[in-house]
Amino acid sequence: MSAVPDLAAIEAMDAADVLRPMRDRFILPPGLIYLDGNSLGVASTAAFDELRKAATEEWGQDLIRSWNTAGWFDMPLALGDRVGRLIGAAAGQTVVCDTTSINIYKTLHAAMALRPDRSMIVSEGGSFPTDLYMAEGVVSTRPGASLRLEGVDAPEIEDLINSDVAVVLVNHVNYKSGELRDMAALTRKAHEHGALVIWDLCHTAGALPVDLDGADVDFAVGCTYKYLNGGPGAPAFIYAATRHHSDIRQPLSGWWGHARPFAFEKNYAAGEGVRRFLCGTQPILSLRALKGALDVWDTVDMAQLREKSIRLTDLFITLVEEKCGAHGLELESPRDGTKRGSQVSFSHPNSYEIMQALIARGVIGDFRAPTTMRFGFTPLYVSYADVWQAVAILEEILRTGSWQDARFAVRAAVT
Amino acid sequence: MSAVPDLAAIEAMDAADVLRPMRDRFILPPGLIYLDGNSLGVASTAAFDELRKAATEEWGQDLIRSWNTAGWFDMPLALGDRVGRLIGAAAGQTVVCDTTSINIYKTLHAAMALRPDRSMIVSEGGSFPTDLYMAEGVVSTRPGASLRLEGVDAPEIEDLINSDVAVVLVNHVNYKSGELRDMAALTRKAHEHGALVIWDLCHTAGALPVDLDGADVDFAVGCTYKYLNGGPGAPAFIYAATRHHSDIRQPLSGWWGHARPFAFEKNYAAGEGVRRFLCGTQPILSLRALKGALDVWDTVDMAQLREKSIRLTDLFITLVEEKCGAHGLELESPRDGTKRGSQVSFSHPNSYEIMQALIARGVIGDFRAPTTMRFGFTPLYVSYADVWQAVAILEEILRTGSWQDARFAVRAAVT
Repeated sequence: MSAVPDLAAIEAMDAADVLRPMRDRFILPPGLIYLDGNSLGVASTAAFDELRKAATEEWGQDLIRSWNTAGWFDMPLALGDRVGRLIGAAAGQTVVCDTTSINIYKTLHAAMALRPDRSMIVSEGGSFPTDLYMAEGVVSTRPGASLRLEGVDAPEIEDLINSDVAVVLVNHVNYKSGELRDMAALTRKAHEHGALVIWDLCHTAGALPVDLDGADVDFAVGCTYKYLNGGPGAPAFIYAATRHHSDIRQPLSGWWGHARPFAFEKNYAAGEGVRRFLCGTQPILSLRALKGALDVWDTVDMAQLREKSIRLTDLFITLVEEKCGAHGLELESPRDGTKRGSQVSFSHPNSYEIMQALIARGVIGDFRAPTTMRFGFTPLYVSYADVWQAVAILEEILRTGSWQDARFAVRAAVT
Repeated sequence: MSAVPDLAAIEAMDAADVLRPMRDRFILPPGLIYLDGNSLGVASTAAFDELRKAATEEWGQDLIRSWNTAGWFDMPLALGDRVGRLIGAAAGQTVVCDTTSINIYKTLHAAMALRPDRSMIVSEGGSFPTDLYMAEGVVSTRPGASLRLEGVDAPEIEDLINSDVAVVLVNHVNYKSGELRDMAALTRKAHEHGALVIWDLCHTAGALPVDLDGADVDFAVGCTYKYLNGGPGAPAFIYAATRHHSDIRQPLSGWWGHARPFAFEKNYAAGEGVRRFLCGTQPILSLRALKGALDVWDTVDMAQLREKSIRLTDLFITLVEEKCGAHGLELESPRDGTKRGSQVSFSHPNSYEIMQALIARGVIGDFRAPTTMRFGFTPLYVSYADVWQAVAILEEILRTGSWQDARFAVRAAVT
């Protein structure tokens, strides 16, 4: 997109948007332009309906019987398959459980157990930090293991991959810049050297299509509370390719992953397939909200989603550079939409204050230290008119300097 | 209690029950006598209110801002302190997060790191199995580590404690028989040999008072969805004595346990105190239901709770033995109420079928293979009349042999 559209053109884009009816399934707070669905997705009527049913009918009335009658016990695998459809995973390879951090721990251990003669984990210095913290945790429990990082030990991750490497842990979409990695190419490169790959899909699942099976991916993890709209802290997921299933070993060996969980045996015996990644009792209420959120996804065409995502983010970049270009904003995301996830970041020396001023005006994005303003564009419920309006408010804040108000400089505990 | 009370005596007991008003705070399904609160506690109006608020107001309207405005970020420690009050833990030593299984993994690693010259974990063959599965997982990541079990390697756990032992992992209330261990004595015995102790309080928290600080306990874990009524799969808790805080190291080192979680640093740096046991993003909706459940507990006197618990379980044993004694039931729980948690188990060769028949008649207990019927008595919402009525139904089922109906022999996936 090179020409700068006017408001009439924006309205025409919304009118022609095939995903526009999806917006009605979400509960959008009045007066808010929410560009932070890459941090916490918006609630849907379906999610609330499932949550209400799980609470009042299942917990409230059926109580313990709901493990059978409401399918609580089957939920991690049933929901896993539905997430799987959105990430190119055939059934039986995805399970929903625990947190992304804990799932990274499990998959790293599983991958290293598959490469017992190797000791190295490779990751990215620019990774979402908890991935690295969990890798440190795994290294602390495996004598001789070590961690090498792109941007610290070598400029490019590809330069770190050799025959010492057991596993490459890498983000598909960079959380800060939105830059995409080539999943198939990096997986192939790792496999050429005998290494395995774990893809972190936190900013991918529900943001753009990927083809885990087609790219021959080994393992993947990701969260469900961003683009999938599963609710705050909704349980995360793990994908494991079928070819690895019979060899999965990981130390978080709890009851739900046991081959016979209700036989109350003294010794652990791993269950079949991706069930081996299950551990303890899952938070059913949060899982059920996620079930509702996934109901919304069942009819979504991922190619249409991607097309709208690129249009939204292209539009945002074009409008910001046209209308706010004089105010020192610099694009931190790839300009080429095909190399970008569903988010756009700009830097400015006063990003913190500007973001606070935006939030005060009802435009919600987020700040990432030291100078990044990050905006997420969730194609299911963000309109082209939202983009237009967000940029108009940003322009006014920059032009009038209203972000210099002292109240916008006060930092909260969590940003 | 030796004399067998009649219905008038039962009604007098309910009329004199100081905890009776608590029952009105719970949502008791009509027609149900629920003796399975030791598996999944009943919902309260307060839990539903908090859940509704968290969903519709915080997630639905305030979205990402709720991390600050609704105190989401502070919940694990805030709720931890409220659980702490019920288990004799001064503030700042308890945190709510993840699952009991995962918390066992964390505390076992932390304890073994505090005893680096020792390699042995001691536990119980009769433990709730997931405790042992997690201990196996820890052993698999620590070269030279091993696990020895009461009932397998020695008759009594005390016989296994020596100067090779790093940590004793033990249940305060046996999940099957309800038998209590002497927390202070076993902790003292472990300490005499230089070992640490982790107490599993799954069947203790909310069932009877304990004094972790007074007993000089090192670590404890437990769930919140049984007697605490936090909701299905509600997050679990960890207690760590203050004296260990500065030395806690555990490998599930995720972002929420970092000293500066919003600085996005590349390297892990453990936060202060019990926060070190936090890992990934918690399921907020489930946490908020738990917050409501804990509101109910704020006014509960634990001594009164214990007194009613012993009366309820004594009454159940007396009535069952008096009215059903001819039908081959055998008491599996301690007869002395002071040596028993808040549950009673009986064995019978046809326990599975009898329990199914009870459930069909609206008396919910549970079955534990091979021959145990387990009944939980939750003093906040179980009445003496419930006990009377449950035994009357059990007696009828045994007397008429109605449990022999073929439909009661069909085993469901989860029992």
